[in-house]
Amino acid sequence: MNKTLLSLCAAAGCLAAVPAQAQFAKPEDAIRYRQSAYVLMGNHMARINTQLRADKPDLAAIQRSAGIIDFASQLPGEAYIPGSETGGTPPTRARPEIFRDPQVRELGARMREEVVKLNAAARGGDLAAIRAQFGETGKSCKACHDKFRRD
Amino acid sequence: MNKTLLSLCAAAGCLAAVPAQAQFAKPEDAIRYRQSAYVLMGNHMARINTQLRADKPDLAAIQRSAGIIDFASQLPGEAYIPGSETGGTPPTRARPEIFRDPQVRELGARMREEVVKLNAAARGGDLAAIRAQFGETGKSCKACHDKFRRD
Repeated sequence: MNKTLLSLCAAAGCLAAVPAQAQFAKPEDAIRYRQSAYVLMGNHMARINTQLRADKPDLAAIQRSAGIIDFASQLPGEAYIPGSETGGTPPTRARPEIFRDPQVRELGARMREEVVKLNAAARGGDLAAIRAQFGETGKSCKACHDKFRRD
Repeated sequence: MNKTLLSLCAAAGCLAAVPAQAQFAKPEDAIRYRQSAYVLMGNHMARINTQLRADKPDLAAIQRSAGIIDFASQLPGEAYIPGSETGGTPPTRARPEIFRDPQVRELGARMREEVVKLNAAARGGDLAAIRAQFGETGKSCKACHDKFRRD
């Protein structure tokens, strides 16, 4: 793995001791793995958004979703393996730069920080704090999407 | 939701208080959500299998994978919503019976029991116990695949 990938891996809390390639039989498996983590994250971000716009937000639902986002957000980093730049069903939307631009590392680490704070805010139960941190978390997602994800 | 779906939902530890349909903007989103959970589960079952066949199994890697399987296995149940019987990219492999056969509930609950035991065995650290429970967990996955998943 090159440094960018190792850093992505570290940012995502995965096992740096084992080459990431060993975890995926085929590059397509790596693509599907990271997509799967993002699908869960996106779905639960949308659920929290729905709750925060509701007349009576369901705090337990928000807490559950924040926990799932925290969990899933630790997974995708290790799946940006060589050979997984293109392909997948549906096709990966990763831009080629994600495999070589060290800024990915900063954006991934920032995202994780914001997600951890979102989870903490959800546990805390203060809706105003959750709302503010949900906004920060969404920005950290968008920063990476804008730069490294195809439309 | 009909009773089978509610039971699936309960077996998967999801929120029974909120109609599952509200969690997914489109049926395709529900399909992709449950597929995503299964992708993570399958990948980490394969990783544990690899470790158990290694000369020196990496216990920390097994424990991490068992935790991820435990987590992800709580998610798919609520995503078998009406309208999600067909479709998806890649297409859902769920057989139509999964939406109406109450046996799904038993198989889902059994799978969760075995996964919880696998996670406990992994924490315990005894490789023989992990190996035995990994076999039982795999059987509980296969029981549902054989009956309710298309080839």
